[in-house]
Amino acid sequence: MAKTVEIKKSVMAADEKIAEKIRSVSREKGILIINLIGSPGAGKTSVLEATYKAADFRFAVIEGDIATTRDAERIALLGVPAVQINTHGGCHLEANLVESAFNELDLDSLDVIFIENVGNLVCPVEFDLGEDYKVAVNSIPEGSDKPLKYPHLFHKAGAVLLTKLDLLPYISFDKELFESDVFKLNPRVSLIEMVPVQGKGIEEWVRLVKGWLEEKRR
Amino acid sequence: MAKTVEIKKSVMAADEKIAEKIRSVSREKGILIINLIGSPGAGKTSVLEATYKAADFRFAVIEGDIATTRDAERIALLGVPAVQINTHGGCHLEANLVESAFNELDLDSLDVIFIENVGNLVCPVEFDLGEDYKVAVNSIPEGSDKPLKYPHLFHKAGAVLLTKLDLLPYISFDKELFESDVFKLNPRVSLIEMVPVQGKGIEEWVRLVKGWLEEKRR
Repeated sequence: MAKTVEIKKSVMAADEKIAEKIRSVSREKGILIINLIGSPGAGKTSVLEATYKAADFRFAVIEGDIATTRDAERIALLGVPAVQINTHGGCHLEANLVESAFNELDLDSLDVIFIENVGNLVCPVEFDLGEDYKVAVNSIPEGSDKPLKYPHLFHKAGAVLLTKLDLLPYISFDKELFESDVFKLNPRVSLIEMVPVQGKGIEEWVRLVKGWLEEKRR
Repeated sequence: MAKTVEIKKSVMAADEKIAEKIRSVSREKGILIINLIGSPGAGKTSVLEATYKAADFRFAVIEGDIATTRDAERIALLGVPAVQINTHGGCHLEANLVESAFNELDLDSLDVIFIENVGNLVCPVEFDLGEDYKVAVNSIPEGSDKPLKYPHLFHKAGAVLLTKLDLLPYISFDKELFESDVFKLNPRVSLIEMVPVQGKGIEEWVRLVKGWLEEKRR
């Protein structure tokens, strides 16, 4: 087993080098990279669709999925540049996959790249994709106990998007508990309540992203 | 990379031997083992709570979580034997963890063991825990596109439990599409519609489990 761990480490080190390369390209081009992480159906693609309607920055999307190209098709329908990565069973994106998607994008025409990771609250957290921020996407129906049960993502996130707030009347969800647990894990995180399909919370989200972009270019 | 793959294979082979051992104990004792797999918040623990109210077989629960002992506490409250396994970040259960949980249970007083896997629609699918059946737990708010986007679990499952059906009026979910995609991936699977907290679908589920148990003991 010790041997496995060593090799895993060296694979991760190679991955970190690629992540560093991505970071250096994004610094040079002044592009902000955001890694969206959440369970299947948390609303990641819907957040991106709503972002398109409100954003005054130029962005592209890298879509990670195990199978199908549905999410990339949803994004491309808007006229937003979208690159699909299929992991063929893999539970998370890795930096080398993101790097290869970079080659498909016209980086000089972009302000922000959103990476929509594979639907999974666990594995994607451990992998550095060269992003500026990880953003947790969590939906009301998943339950208010999720921050403590899946603490790693909430601990590392630059923002938490709490989606599907319109379902609150029909679901037993303790919003105070959710919020206090999130801030226990990560006192400085931005927590935004959202109903992406209704546009609720999207302006606040777009403002946050724009602030991050300006900070990066300063 | 080839070396990593080889070592991964040998670790998985060791795991398969333990899974085989679990299977041989469960055969000898006439215990049915069911591995529940679904996203965070799909309703796995609620299904088990509802099962307790309707079941006329004796069962125990092995709870897999990354952190916290909340789900095991929910189950133990009912008086059902519950063993918690914390993976400390690990995204799935492995057979050796299940084997160690076996030592905490009085196998002679049990008909069924439910394993509630870590909330994750991806990784747990690949790991044989010595179970008789994998069961997919999928909730309405996750969206009707999930079978094709996460095909591996649906392909291998003995049953699919479609939970939180009471939210259907408030959510855009194409039930016909979901069902036809599930049967495309797995024509012989049992698909049960459920509202666990209201008891809806639970009798059908208990009948299915009992049928599997009788078949195993025949």
